[in-house]
Amino acid sequence: MNTEKEQLIAEIEALNVQEAHGELATANRRRRARLKRKLEAICEEEKRLEKEDALDLSYMKEAVRLAKKAAAIGEVPIGCVIVYDGEIIAKGYNRRNADKSTLSHAEMTAIRRASKKLDDWRLEECTLYVTLEPCQMCAGAIVQARIPRVVIGTMNPKAGCAGSILDLFHVEAFNHQVEVKTGVAEDECKRMLRLFFADMRRKRTTQN
Amino acid sequence: MNTEKEQLIAEIEALNVQEAHGELATANRRRRARLKRKLEAICEEEKRLEKEDALDLSYMKEAVRLAKKAAAIGEVPIGCVIVYDGEIIAKGYNRRNADKSTLSHAEMTAIRRASKKLDDWRLEECTLYVTLEPCQMCAGAIVQARIPRVVIGTMNPKAGCAGSILDLFHVEAFNHQVEVKTGVAEDECKRMLRLFFADMRRKRTTQN
Repeated sequence: MNTEKEQLIAEIEALNVQEAHGELATANRRRRARLKRKLEAICEEEKRLEKEDALDLSYMKEAVRLAKKAAAIGEVPIGCVIVYDGEIIAKGYNRRNADKSTLSHAEMTAIRRASKKLDDWRLEECTLYVTLEPCQMCAGAIVQARIPRVVIGTMNPKAGCAGSILDLFHVEAFNHQVEVKTGVAEDECKRMLRLFFADMRRKRTTQN
Repeated sequence: MNTEKEQLIAEIEALNVQEAHGELATANRRRRARLKRKLEAICEEEKRLEKEDALDLSYMKEAVRLAKKAAAIGEVPIGCVIVYDGEIIAKGYNRRNADKSTLSHAEMTAIRRASKKLDDWRLEECTLYVTLEPCQMCAGAIVQARIPRVVIGTMNPKAGCAGSILDLFHVEAFNHQVEVKTGVAEDECKRMLRLFFADMRRKRTTQN
């Protein structure tokens, strides 16, 4: 429980104890009412965040499912969904080798499809979920499409551009910044990549 | 003429004058031969660069022609061509509003088409010509596609990512860097944009 909440509960409790020993002064009754309202607001925000966490996790699970489709065709397992108004409106998974196109990263496919769905290049009320921290191209596309919020499974310390190598989501000179949440279904996203690369190494060793 | 060349010519001339007054010592004859070889190498490099400049200009002119197609449909005039083995293999112009897609920037269309043409997501022996300094997404796509050389018409001080706001072409941590040449057909590229925005402002004023 957060400290502010603990303090509020303790203060309200103290006033309740005081009341049990005789009527509270008006100032104290008012103070208790203020404390209660504050406590309620904190509880509301906690509930909102809990609900958001649960929703974020469920959307990320869908991105993981898509990443596995990439792995199944021998591509680095990266998956992406875009959510608008509580609904998944676009999906994508890495098909760079299958399509022989740099533009077939999971995020790019999802962004293209979301724009088609909303009939607009601006995705200003969407959240993008991706299993791996975006590269410079995808992070750039997210900023260009004005997506306000991105949820990331696991970071990519060697090439990620949402904080690892660069942070393209918080460049003051750009006309758009992006809110980022990281570490959603992190273990699963990491394990998926680790397994894929271990499998690739194993196959290479067998071939040689 | 560059200073090194001037110096070489002066030194060779001095040795020639010396020779006119009597036979040159062996050391001086050898020295003159060395100086001549150096001068020839410099002249060869100058010729190469002159030819490169002329070719770069001719490809940029094609990018300008494409940019004008964008202007003709009311889009910000930006054009792009990709050259492989002395041939234009892909073209693109800005159609962001027409296609209602962030991915319809000139460079993205050209990259997509070039990959299709070469049947490879790696464009490792291509040069990309673009009339305006690329944004973060397009600069990112150029790095991802491993394009080794980019020629730019005019810089974009407010949003460019090839040196203006960021330089995504020279990030040591990335596995690919990009050679950049700027200012090719600069006046024409600039004028085209200036005219477009002036025209847009004029239309807005007339509407209000």
